[in-house]
Amino acid sequence: NETAKAELGRATWKLMHTMTLRFPKKPTQDEREALNSYFHLMSRLYPCGECAAEFQQLLKRFPPQTSSRLAASQWLCALHNEVNKRLHKPIFDCAHVDSTYDCGC
Amino acid sequence: NETAKAELGRATWKLMHTMTLRFPKKPTQDEREALNSYFHLMSRLYPCGECAAEFQQLLKRFPPQTSSRLAASQWLCALHNEVNKRLHKPIFDCAHVDSTYDCGC
Ligand SMILES: Cc1cc2nc3c(=O)[nH]c(=O)nc-3n(C[C@H](O)[C@H](O)[C@H](O)COP(=O)(O)OP(=O)(O)OC[C@H]3O[C@@H](n4cnc5c(N)ncnc54)[C@H](O)[C@@H]3O)c2cc1C
Ligand SMILES: Cc1cc2nc3c(=O)[nH]c(=O)nc-3n(C[C@H](O)[C@H](O)[C@H](O)COP(=O)(O)OP(=O)(O)OC[C@H]3O[C@@H](n4cnc5c(N)ncnc54)[C@H](O)[C@@H]3O)c2cc1C
Repeated sequence: NETAKAELGRATWKLMHTMTLRFPKKPTQDEREALNSYFHLMSRLYPCGECAAEFQQLLKRFPPQTSSRLAASQWLCALHNEVNKRLHKPIFDCAHVDSTYDCGC
Repeated sequence: NETAKAELGRATWKLMHTMTLRFPKKPTQDEREALNSYFHLMSRLYPCGECAAEFQQLLKRFPPQTSSRLAASQWLCALHNEVNKRLHKPIFDCAHVDSTYDCGC
């Protein structure tokens, strides 16, 4: 069921991008470790086996950048573009990531 | 911006419910700890301050159930109903959680 897989992917990207864009600008060590662990656990628990395996490979090649909000959000945008490339989807301009994801908070 | 907050909420519930419904039926200790940590980190990093605070309180009152797929998915359904109650939304019948979330995988 490709529709369900796509909907789950969209929901997950939305949550993850919004999360990095609300991550502290100057995170503590503890906050940095929380974000790093979050992505690693997500890649293990993501409920699409094929995608989870790919996610884990990507995290090895591109470890989470957690030094600041900007670093984290640009890192995730680049990671998403790696998935886009593999799936032959358009590459997103990471300069626009800020204005695309509004958490309403 | 209430629309953005609601969309983020929907995306997050979708991911979390689908995740519990794909969680192993007989998880290892390591898998159980991964799911437990995932929810605790999510409650810290969730990009809506008011919701994150509420999420953390709920996890204290109702710690994640990780002994099986059924335990985890029914626990999350009950937790979501606690949020529904507070927001005056209809209570969801947890007997139907299985058929509502298809990950397409
Ligand atoms: C970790 C992970 C791995 C996945 N692996 C697979 C897989 O192996 N096979 C598979 O079929 N599907 C996979 N998916 C799902 C896939 O990435 C898409 O979510 C799904 O195909 C729906 O695509 P979409 O075209 O709606 O846009 P999505 O890729 O879901 O993106 C949603 C929206 O985000 C915006 N966007 C696009 N690129 C970026 C970017 N770089 N940064 C910020 N915003 C952006 C655009 O507005 C886009 O419409 C995976 C999803 C995740 C989260
Ligand atoms: C952890 C968390 C805390 C939140 N706290 C707040 C808050 O404090 N204030 C605020 O305004 N918003 C909060 N939200 C957002 C809120 O819960 C909703 O997501 C949002 O209001 C959109 O609601 P909705 O009516 O579309 O349905 P949602 O509650 O988003 O549910 C989406 C769909 O899931 C199904 N569903 C409903 N109940 C259940 C259930 N118990 N089990 C399984 N499936 C179910 C239904 O089909 C429903 O349409 C929070 C979200 C999360 C994830």
